[in-house]
Amino acid sequence: MSSESKPWAGRFTEATDAFVEAFTASVDFDKRLAPHDIQGSIAHAAMLKRIGVLSEEECEIIRHGLEQIRAEIERGEFAWSIKLEDVHMNIEARLTERIGEAGKKLHTGRSRNDQVATDVRLYLRHEIDRIGGEILRLRQALLDLAEREADTIMPGFTHLQVAQPVTFGHHLLAWNEMLARDHERLLDCRKRVNVMPLGAAALAGTTFPLDRFYTAELLGFDRPAPNSLDAVSDRDFAIEFTACAGLMMMHLSRFSEELILWTSAQFGFIELPDAFCTGSSIMPQKKNPDVPELVRGKSGRVFGHLMSLLTLMKSQPLAYNKDNQEDKEPLFDTVDTVKNCLRAFADMMPHVRPNRDGMYASASKGYATATDLADYLVRKGVPFRDAHEIVGKAVRLGIETGRDLSGLSLTELQQLSATIGPDVFDILTLEGSVRARNHFGGTAPEQVRAAVKQARQGLEEMAKT
Amino acid sequence: MSSESKPWAGRFTEATDAFVEAFTASVDFDKRLAPHDIQGSIAHAAMLKRIGVLSEEECEIIRHGLEQIRAEIERGEFAWSIKLEDVHMNIEARLTERIGEAGKKLHTGRSRNDQVATDVRLYLRHEIDRIGGEILRLRQALLDLAEREADTIMPGFTHLQVAQPVTFGHHLLAWNEMLARDHERLLDCRKRVNVMPLGAAALAGTTFPLDRFYTAELLGFDRPAPNSLDAVSDRDFAIEFTACAGLMMMHLSRFSEELILWTSAQFGFIELPDAFCTGSSIMPQKKNPDVPELVRGKSGRVFGHLMSLLTLMKSQPLAYNKDNQEDKEPLFDTVDTVKNCLRAFADMMPHVRPNRDGMYASASKGYATATDLADYLVRKGVPFRDAHEIVGKAVRLGIETGRDLSGLSLTELQQLSATIGPDVFDILTLEGSVRARNHFGGTAPEQVRAAVKQARQGLEEMAKT
Amino acid sequence: MSSESKPWAGRFTEATDAFVEAFTASVDFDKRLAPHDIQGSIAHAAMLKRIGVLSEEECEIIRHGLEQIRAEIERGEFAWSIKLEDVHMNIEARLTERIGEAGKKLHTGRSRNDQVATDVRLYLRHEIDRIGGEILRLRQALLDLAEREADTIMPGFTHLQVAQPVTFGHHLLAWNEMLARDHERLLDCRKRVNVMPLGAAALAGTTFPLDRFYTAELLGFDRPAPNSLDAVSDRDFAIEFTACAGLMMMHLSRFSEELILWTSAQFGFIELPDAFCTGSSIMPQKKNPDVPELVRGKSGRVFGHLMSLLTLMKSQPLAYNKDNQEDKEPLFDTVDTVKNCLRAFADMMPHVRPNRDGMYASASKGYATATDLADYLVRKGVPFRDAHEIVGKAVRLGIETGRDLSGLSLTELQQLSATIGPDVFDILTLEGSVRARNHFGGTAPEQVRAAVKQARQGLEEMAKT
Amino acid sequence: MSSESKPWAGRFTEATDAFVEAFTASVDFDKRLAPHDIQGSIAHAAMLKRIGVLSEEECEIIRHGLEQIRAEIERGEFAWSIKLEDVHMNIEARLTERIGEAGKKLHTGRSRNDQVATDVRLYLRHEIDRIGGEILRLRQALLDLAEREADTIMPGFTHLQVAQPVTFGHHLLAWNEMLARDHERLLDCRKRVNVMPLGAAALAGTTFPLDRFYTAELLGFDRPAPNSLDAVSDRDFAIEFTACAGLMMMHLSRFSEELILWTSAQFGFIELPDAFCTGSSIMPQKKNPDVPELVRGKSGRVFGHLMSLLTLMKSQPLAYNKDNQEDKEPLFDTVDTVKNCLRAFADMMPHVRPNRDGMYASASKGYATATDLADYLVRKGVPFRDAHEIVGKAVRLGIETGRDLSGLSLTELQQLSATIGPDVFDILTLEGSVRARNHFGGTAPEQVRAAVKQARQGLEEMAKT
Repeated sequence: MSSESKPWAGRFTEATDAFVEAFTASVDFDKRLAPHDIQGSIAHAAMLKRIGVLSEEECEIIRHGLEQIRAEIERGEFAWSIKLEDVHMNIEARLTERIGEAGKKLHTGRSRNDQVATDVRLYLRHEIDRIGGEILRLRQALLDLAEREADTIMPGFTHLQVAQPVTFGHHLLAWNEMLARDHERLLDCRKRVNVMPLGAAALAGTTFPLDRFYTAELLGFDRPAPNSLDAVSDRDFAIEFTACAGLMMMHLSRFSEELILWTSAQFGFIELPDAFCTGSSIMPQKKNPDVPELVRGKSGRVFGHLMSLLTLMKSQPLAYNKDNQEDKEPLFDTVDTVKNCLRAFADMMPHVRPNRDGMYASASKGYATATDLADYLVRKGVPFRDAHEIVGKAVRLGIETGRDLSGLSLTELQQLSATIGPDVFDILTLEGSVRARNHFGGTAPEQVRAAVKQARQGLEEMAKT
Repeated sequence: MSSESKPWAGRFTEATDAFVEAFTASVDFDKRLAPHDIQGSIAHAAMLKRIGVLSEEECEIIRHGLEQIRAEIERGEFAWSIKLEDVHMNIEARLTERIGEAGKKLHTGRSRNDQVATDVRLYLRHEIDRIGGEILRLRQALLDLAEREADTIMPGFTHLQVAQPVTFGHHLLAWNEMLARDHERLLDCRKRVNVMPLGAAALAGTTFPLDRFYTAELLGFDRPAPNSLDAVSDRDFAIEFTACAGLMMMHLSRFSEELILWTSAQFGFIELPDAFCTGSSIMPQKKNPDVPELVRGKSGRVFGHLMSLLTLMKSQPLAYNKDNQEDKEPLFDTVDTVKNCLRAFADMMPHVRPNRDGMYASASKGYATATDLADYLVRKGVPFRDAHEIVGKAVRLGIETGRDLSGLSLTELQQLSATIGPDVFDILTLEGSVRARNHFGGTAPEQVRAAVKQARQGLEEMAKT
Repeated sequence: MSSESKPWAGRFTEATDAFVEAFTASVDFDKRLAPHDIQGSIAHAAMLKRIGVLSEEECEIIRHGLEQIRAEIERGEFAWSIKLEDVHMNIEARLTERIGEAGKKLHTGRSRNDQVATDVRLYLRHEIDRIGGEILRLRQALLDLAEREADTIMPGFTHLQVAQPVTFGHHLLAWNEMLARDHERLLDCRKRVNVMPLGAAALAGTTFPLDRFYTAELLGFDRPAPNSLDAVSDRDFAIEFTACAGLMMMHLSRFSEELILWTSAQFGFIELPDAFCTGSSIMPQKKNPDVPELVRGKSGRVFGHLMSLLTLMKSQPLAYNKDNQEDKEPLFDTVDTVKNCLRAFADMMPHVRPNRDGMYASASKGYATATDLADYLVRKGVPFRDAHEIVGKAVRLGIETGRDLSGLSLTELQQLSATIGPDVFDILTLEGSVRARNHFGGTAPEQVRAAVKQARQGLEEMAKT
Repeated sequence: MSSESKPWAGRFTEATDAFVEAFTASVDFDKRLAPHDIQGSIAHAAMLKRIGVLSEEECEIIRHGLEQIRAEIERGEFAWSIKLEDVHMNIEARLTERIGEAGKKLHTGRSRNDQVATDVRLYLRHEIDRIGGEILRLRQALLDLAEREADTIMPGFTHLQVAQPVTFGHHLLAWNEMLARDHERLLDCRKRVNVMPLGAAALAGTTFPLDRFYTAELLGFDRPAPNSLDAVSDRDFAIEFTACAGLMMMHLSRFSEELILWTSAQFGFIELPDAFCTGSSIMPQKKNPDVPELVRGKSGRVFGHLMSLLTLMKSQPLAYNKDNQEDKEPLFDTVDTVKNCLRAFADMMPHVRPNRDGMYASASKGYATATDLADYLVRKGVPFRDAHEIVGKAVRLGIETGRDLSGLSLTELQQLSATIGPDVFDILTLEGSVRARNHFGGTAPEQVRAAVKQARQGLEEMAKT
């Protein structure tokens, strides 16, 4: 193919350097957009017919030609060419090859600038919906597990120090909350993705009387973008999505960290299914939590892509600049990463096996009911700050004599505060402690079950959107 | 003050090292939260009264004491102490000093973990509303200017090369679109900010029968956070806000880049008011566009804070960890930066003076109406791709002979395409070119005026929220 | 003070807006550069004298005036003014106030552009040396501890699963290696910091016959910067330093993570001194590893500053732009953060108390000597891959029957491989395992002692630089 | 292939899930390391022979087998398998398939943990040398152009406002300085890359008496890494390299910004060769500076990878964790990006055509010699600050009356300062201004030529390293 086939060769006197051609081409990665490019072109042709630029027959020939190209691509028979720069020119050149003159008319009233922005939005809208599906699947798994483990007691940590007993179900619901926010945020982002640049042409609109509302309707967009200069240069939607994905990956990195901690011999709170672990080439005894480790590591990947895109757009003058070609790879990789990580977790979570005895034993150490003793004193009329100090002394006594709070005698406790009575031992058990946190948002099994129920309702509503 | 005044000193045997005390204290920066801390404490006290933990009198004494402390702080008379670590303990210690026993009861059923998360959310909600106000003010200024300059012709650029003529009003509306998205995004973020952690206590809820819905109502929160572990450790709202701010700063960096270009002697499109420029200590002739330059530079600051917060939360296990103290400075600085930059732009924009002649002259060069010629050929029946090539040759002829397209003779044009008639010269003017892009989103003055009108309506609705 | 006092007021017709004045001023943060600014000015004056621009007397008056201002600043008596924009104009204005005409001559042959770049380099060189001192102190503490714990056995982890026994001393030496690289990298960076911009003036050099080599010598710079345009706009040194600091903070975040894990009840490997921990306002039993948590969190801060500075410089045209004013706050905060974190660790490390029994017990579980068994088989002639599989089966038998490898009988072992003899039990002990890894870089106590010795020599050489 | 072929399958009871297998495999991207993996294995085998673990014959069979595999890979005939996880197991499995028993012995005394770290370092060392070559080539082109344009006058900018005239050669030398620092920094980084992890085995060294100094010598490493735990988990070298690359890309983004500005119709300072530009699919007249735009955009890519890697390592406990597998893609893409961008610039630079008349005309406007007038006054005895104010007034008069400084009459000038004589007009020319900045680092043509000469010497020394 001669370099004369470049769509813009008319004005130029030198051929493009071969290295430069490969350096500036995007077809290697943007061919992923092909189905969306074809979908967009079919709608554009239909609109051109409606406003009289294409005849009914031309429109039909174009549609049919594009459908055949779609099939060629799906069958892996399409010959992508770097000389043709990008997915758009590859498809258009093939169309003209197939259908002749009519193919050359398709680009009327549009530019690659509005075309690529439209393609990427169609692609991202599609992927957001798939990611939403994975979130729902993972949340479902978490809620099932949380319900089953509503009564399972484990140590609650702050500063990785045992703080107060909580239920394992309650802990899992904390993860569910993070994902619920992620989904909500993703749907807010989707509103801003689902706006149509097509019709902005190169930057200023066109001299043809385009019916952009019609094209938008055909493509399922909420509305055409209101300003042509903005439409071709706006990449906010990619950045906003990547920021949402960054938050998701941050959450998954937190889940991962806990799964890794919990599978360590030292914690021993859970066991991961073999299928989500791998071994060592040198240490025959190892069973490594590879999936959570990899997910934890992949958070950096998405944070990096976010920085990449923000830097990309920093101080770019209007309207389209070639820099923007660099938006695709970070976006595509972000989509793949977050989708795969969610999938891996959704697959894995139903098979996580809690070690209930290990959790309980761990909660029994570390003076986890100290706050309960303080609250007990408050209910007996001791101001909170004084109660806190009394319990601090009880803990110090416990540490020095190697006993937990429930191991101190009533006499010893009464020397610290005369208001303590024999009923104190009821509130120093783990079960009593957990049961007592019985208000909205608290860790009591009753609250956990109510929260699961409410979350399931939310999930069903989400699934409908 | 003895180290015994630490709220947690009971259990400890060594005093805190002086350097460590300063290193771990947050009061130097979190005192900014004081009004919100007091607001939260007053609501918490009212709730404790409602559920019978505080008497009516105690509640009133606490409220009155806190109001007096608020006044002390406003008058700059409050003595902040690093020994007391943070804003919460400073205020509580002062309260107990002022009102005695009742002060020690205030902390019943809460922890600094849920308290600080509540304070930060109250603060951020307040600041989001102020930032929203600045966005409205800036958009107002842009719309006023866009309306005034709806007919002003300037070169539209892609790749910083003259592409097609556009109107200056149309260009300003592109900026307006970016800000409209920013505002919408900010309000979506606000929904997730306006959720109340209070009642989560340290991590698991409390043994007191808190009425969290009542406290939420008093503080104007939409609802209490549904899971206590999540409530104390969630910093999504700060990250999401910082991501929104990052997008805003990216937009402002783009406006800045254009303002800087346009004030250069080479472009000469606008003049900035002296009050927003500074001079040079060595070159007496200089008038530097300092405000846009500084705003452009400050984009990096906010991108950095976003990275900072994402890294902060990466792989933190539940629930609260001391790391989270590091959320405040990036958040506070992000709020200040974005608010001040918006303010500077809102103040400056009404005083920007366009140099209409300079813009027009610039648009006259660079074959800006080449696309119009191509479209003309398409309307005469030439397929778009062929038309594109014909015009490419016309441009090459123009460059070689030093003339613009409208300077070529009809004969010369007809040698390139026999379909060209004498009516071609009408569409080769800048006015004709701009006027012809007359569809929704296009650059025609008529469309610009309609877009301003519609944007004003959107603005009024925003102002009501 | 009237706005006429601006050094550049001559050309302007409008006064600077008050908000803009505060927005663009840098004195609030760049006053930190005052001692370096004065040092630079004294050297500049001496050079001006040498080339005959200042008389001996003028030079002396200037020097004396600047010394007095330095003293005013140190005593906290200097009245900083936002109207005077920055540290340079504040000091120069005060100088002229104090000494009259001679003060006005000081700025001959320089500009704030080269002046600020020089000041920041002097500042950073000074701070690099202080940070180097903290690294040495921390490494010293690590080496002392490593030597004391050269024989202490702990589990070595990969994937947070017990892998092979190692010595605690060996683990500490891994940290020492990271810091050694940090220091080496910092000294490489220092070479590029220690280059003098002064003499570049605004951007192009000056019409005075400056002797830049003389000024460089007076200020201890290695050489004057070879290109004036580059000299005033280069901020590489700040970015390179921040990247070095980012690596240091990453290392400290890793140390922190391990300290936090090790102080958890589940690991229980070490105890941190009380003075480096804090308690809880609600849970009286808590002793939180605040210092490592905070240090871990502060890593994000420095990563953010790095991002900030890279973004700042992205696509800035030559030469100086106002954007560059934004280099200071990230740099200053990076210096403070890394210096304080190193100091906190250097103070804390000598007081870390290992729990040797806990470490040993932890290493005894988890089949840590499985690799030793595989290596044993290899020495008996079994190919490594086959040996690995045999040991895998032995581990599986151990797990199923609840025994460690050393708990399996010789008969059981021989059923897996006939080559196993009674000597196998020697190599299955932790001590035997550790002792056997006796080559350069290995964990054997003998190697640890040799490594400490070698590291001490390196440290001494570093201390001399 | 059955899942039993996993090197670690002995201990496991469930097969790996197919999706998980693909999710955790790295062979798709780490096969790039194959030549380095083979190189490392051959050296490892030679060392095993030297210490008696392998016989001379076994060593030779292994070497020969690996060479044949290398050839298979080069011919594209190697069948990579995802089931075999990574490049290491793919090659080892093929080796055993080819040579039988001896292949199984190769992994004696090493682990994939030290193996992969060694491979990546060999790869990076190789790529650093290639990148260094591209830097030299680009600098060569810059110096040639600088020498040719040593007398070409252009406006020097600060704040994108005309500041003082400079020579185009001087401007190009500023770029050369940035690249010189980049190269120096890269060589400093190379020292820390060129350290050998091999022998650290999984994390603790091995029970075989490895001669690590011998292996290091065979592979051209400066020395073996001194601590096994650090050796397998250290990724500093990848981060440091990526930081160096980030600085390079920042520099290239600055060059790009200027090239883009200069090719705009408004500046018109240079013309880029057609081969490095592309056209528009819609606007036939466009010639877009695609290469610099793309390079500018790619800066974000590398900044993002840097953030990615820093986040990856944040708070990872020792020693190797699966997260580290995520180091490769950012590193590989950074290498490709920086190498290609440098190559594109090195190819393009010799063909950049300056528009000398355009540059000169631009320098003539904007009062570029105002500083020269101020310096003139200083030489006549006026203190600098007073001179600055006088010239400010002269500029204001010029602006008000539409004349440049050289257009003011002597009388007018003398009304501003009586010290001005008729000799003033000599220093108000562009040539006079440039010539006068004749000290080390200044813009005078004489200095530019000297600087080119000195830079060429530096380049030759660099080329020798």
